[in-house]
Amino acid sequence: MRFNFRLILNLLSVLVMINGAFMLLCLPFSLYYRESVTPLTISAGVAVAIGAITWFLTRKNLVTELKKKDGYLVVTLGWLSMSLVGTLPYLISGTIPDFTNAFFETISGFTTTGATILTDIEALPKGILFWRSLTQWIGGMGIIVLAVAILPILGIGGMQLFVAEAPGISPDKLKPRIKETAKRLWIIYLGLTLLETLLLMAGGMTFFDAINHALTTMATGGFSTKNASVAYYNSPFIHYVIIIFMFLAGTNFTITYFALKGKFVQVWKNEEFRNYLFLTVIVSLVISIFVFSADWEGFEKSFRDSLFQVVSVITTTGYITADYTAWTPFVTVIFFLLMFSGGSAGSTAGGIKIVRHTLLFKNSLLEMKRQLHPSAVIPVRLNEAAVSRDITYNVLAFIMIYLSAYGIGIFLISFTGVSMDTALGAVATCLGNIGPGLGEVGPVDNFSGITPFGKWVLAFLMLMGRLELFTVLMLFNIHYWKRY
Amino acid sequence: MRFNFRLILNLLSVLVMINGAFMLLCLPFSLYYRESVTPLTISAGVAVAIGAITWFLTRKNLVTELKKKDGYLVVTLGWLSMSLVGTLPYLISGTIPDFTNAFFETISGFTTTGATILTDIEALPKGILFWRSLTQWIGGMGIIVLAVAILPILGIGGMQLFVAEAPGISPDKLKPRIKETAKRLWIIYLGLTLLETLLLMAGGMTFFDAINHALTTMATGGFSTKNASVAYYNSPFIHYVIIIFMFLAGTNFTITYFALKGKFVQVWKNEEFRNYLFLTVIVSLVISIFVFSADWEGFEKSFRDSLFQVVSVITTTGYITADYTAWTPFVTVIFFLLMFSGGSAGSTAGGIKIVRHTLLFKNSLLEMKRQLHPSAVIPVRLNEAAVSRDITYNVLAFIMIYLSAYGIGIFLISFTGVSMDTALGAVATCLGNIGPGLGEVGPVDNFSGITPFGKWVLAFLMLMGRLELFTVLMLFNIHYWKRY
Repeated sequence: MRFNFRLILNLLSVLVMINGAFMLLCLPFSLYYRESVTPLTISAGVAVAIGAITWFLTRKNLVTELKKKDGYLVVTLGWLSMSLVGTLPYLISGTIPDFTNAFFETISGFTTTGATILTDIEALPKGILFWRSLTQWIGGMGIIVLAVAILPILGIGGMQLFVAEAPGISPDKLKPRIKETAKRLWIIYLGLTLLETLLLMAGGMTFFDAINHALTTMATGGFSTKNASVAYYNSPFIHYVIIIFMFLAGTNFTITYFALKGKFVQVWKNEEFRNYLFLTVIVSLVISIFVFSADWEGFEKSFRDSLFQVVSVITTTGYITADYTAWTPFVTVIFFLLMFSGGSAGSTAGGIKIVRHTLLFKNSLLEMKRQLHPSAVIPVRLNEAAVSRDITYNVLAFIMIYLSAYGIGIFLISFTGVSMDTALGAVATCLGNIGPGLGEVGPVDNFSGITPFGKWVLAFLMLMGRLELFTVLMLFNIHYWKRY
Repeated sequence: MRFNFRLILNLLSVLVMINGAFMLLCLPFSLYYRESVTPLTISAGVAVAIGAITWFLTRKNLVTELKKKDGYLVVTLGWLSMSLVGTLPYLISGTIPDFTNAFFETISGFTTTGATILTDIEALPKGILFWRSLTQWIGGMGIIVLAVAILPILGIGGMQLFVAEAPGISPDKLKPRIKETAKRLWIIYLGLTLLETLLLMAGGMTFFDAINHALTTMATGGFSTKNASVAYYNSPFIHYVIIIFMFLAGTNFTITYFALKGKFVQVWKNEEFRNYLFLTVIVSLVISIFVFSADWEGFEKSFRDSLFQVVSVITTTGYITADYTAWTPFVTVIFFLLMFSGGSAGSTAGGIKIVRHTLLFKNSLLEMKRQLHPSAVIPVRLNEAAVSRDITYNVLAFIMIYLSAYGIGIFLISFTGVSMDTALGAVATCLGNIGPGLGEVGPVDNFSGITPFGKWVLAFLMLMGRLELFTVLMLFNIHYWKRY
């Protein structure tokens, strides 16, 4: 099987052009806040030019069918080329003059991670800040397509699992599938973003801050326009609005679609959703008790702070209203463990994801039953259906590779000389696409102190985590490049 | 299927009597060092009495065949009853008057962990110290039987994997198997213990210190008779002798048997052994360079210290000649990661073990090949033979449960109020049966500062880790207790 490089390049060129077009969306803010429009205009021009030239050179006699093997390359190179072109506004405006830093910030955006190297976010021009938030929102759109339409076909990490529930999807060709499903879920994504913007404005945010936070909430990204993140706002209303929308962004979008259609029975029947809800509520209550009993403010504030931080970490968003590493070591350890949770499959959240944990837990119990009856076939059941052994195996392999990547990551990051908790936190938060970590990269700090080598390692981990590991790792596998 | 409780109790009573008999072995040292023989004599008497009475009450009409399902109970209760009776010398002599502490120290012995709650080891009577070392050596004997003869039959965590290579074992009944294999490997175990005693004496140790260190080296236990552990001895010869014997104790005993018979080709063909050797050498060299370049003494001393600590942690022994947490954060992280390595299967070492890591790594690579060819059957190959999907699956499940237990463990331990690195280190070192951890339970510290609740949790983790997880967890599974 040969690769269809010309088709791949052609597709990438379209992505780069779209990227350029999105940059133009930032111009109104530049104009309104009386900033120079030059950097963003040039960036958009360069992006569109690169895209257009590549498109022109690759346009002839295209085979329209994308083969499975090409999928891995398109996805990984897609995110990479977006992240490369996405650095232009930072570099040309001089707001982030260093290429490593600019790339780190951009890939942290497109992977919806939210880790930042900026020490003074509020000093940036509004147009650039909007671009920064937009990278996350675009990344979120990409993730929806990826999770719903592409990964299940590539057969990655048990992503077939939840697709069976997506309405109206037949396991046919790639293209019609992307169009149908993506359109429906994108409308929900867009609608929720607009709704949140309105609610945040109702809570007292300016339109600019409201739309930026809405973009990065729905992407479970976590970039804020304020140095203090959401802690800047003292309004319980704003906090609760963001909590609810983070939770929605971390929910399987198909489940939200069911809910919007009034099919609540189907929502409640979904095991992943139930566990996601239970985990969030129970852990928040436990932490609330600790935060409350160690004094700090009243119970409502303790509960709100706990809930906000828990939802922020579970959904891999990464906003902050309180420093979870400043409570007690026990609470810090809980947040460290939550970094390995991840939101729901089919949402914009990153990480291992609740459905995989659910499957793992059930399988572990059954593994003991299997030892007692070695000849019996005992499948795991999810949402009342038996999960095939192949998928269970695939999920186990996914989690193992995730944790191995984590081990290798902390090895490489501690090589740069940071403390152990910094390394443990930085790798967990980047691989899980969360944002804040522990120690020197904790909630009230940023990634500016990490060495360039460390930043490249973390950038790679963000990409790998975001693309469900296999998509990226496949390209390093010799079998992939063999011709058959 | 019903449990054969009377047979189980009868077997346990024999173990308890043997335990009592071993206590008598400590008396010569009590006499030689002119200590009171009363505590050990009473302990031995009580142990033998308990065992004899139980044996007498359960002796009639015994079915001699042990069923598979009984195996889990015998093994877990066996280790537990040894550990309970093993506390007698500490309690009766008043050297460890508190029951929680005495139990922690004893189970740390029988599980060959080596974590201690003693703050002044050298203050203990020699007879009691010898008992302390002996618990590890007895534990090591038990582990050999367990690994070679029992676990493969129970089908736990892929332990079937290396048995195929054990000479002269047929997958028949339990009893003849235990006798044959155990006898052969016990002779090697005993022989190496004696040889090490002689070599350590040649290096200048007293007979008492030499035999104690030999007992706890071969068990990969790590209890020392000195407060400073092996760092007490300033002799490179002693250090190298202990390094070599730790390495041998962490080697599959069947491989050692082959080596002794001159079948070096078979030794070299064993993938686990090769990886075990490479890992040890490469990691030691890397750390040497860091230790050497950060100054401290010359290269030989840097290399020796690095090698000693690396072998000590990989083989899960836990002796110390230098504080690995005092070097650099990078080196600390390497040691933290090494705590998840474990020695070879079929040795006295604990932890995940090299063979499982090898299988996991190979399987991860193949998992990508499988995604490209979903319909092809692509088995992992180990030692040139295809490993069945069932076993691979079982190994993956084992590692996942190990890491889940680790996560739950740090959750519970940090609840006791220790710092995060202490929790991370304590759980890793107890679950992996190593000994020293990080932070407040680092190489130059001990477990006396952990709360009683924390000690019970860690004791449970030691037992679970030592018995390859499933043996213990099975007893908490509802399917196990069901009648069929």
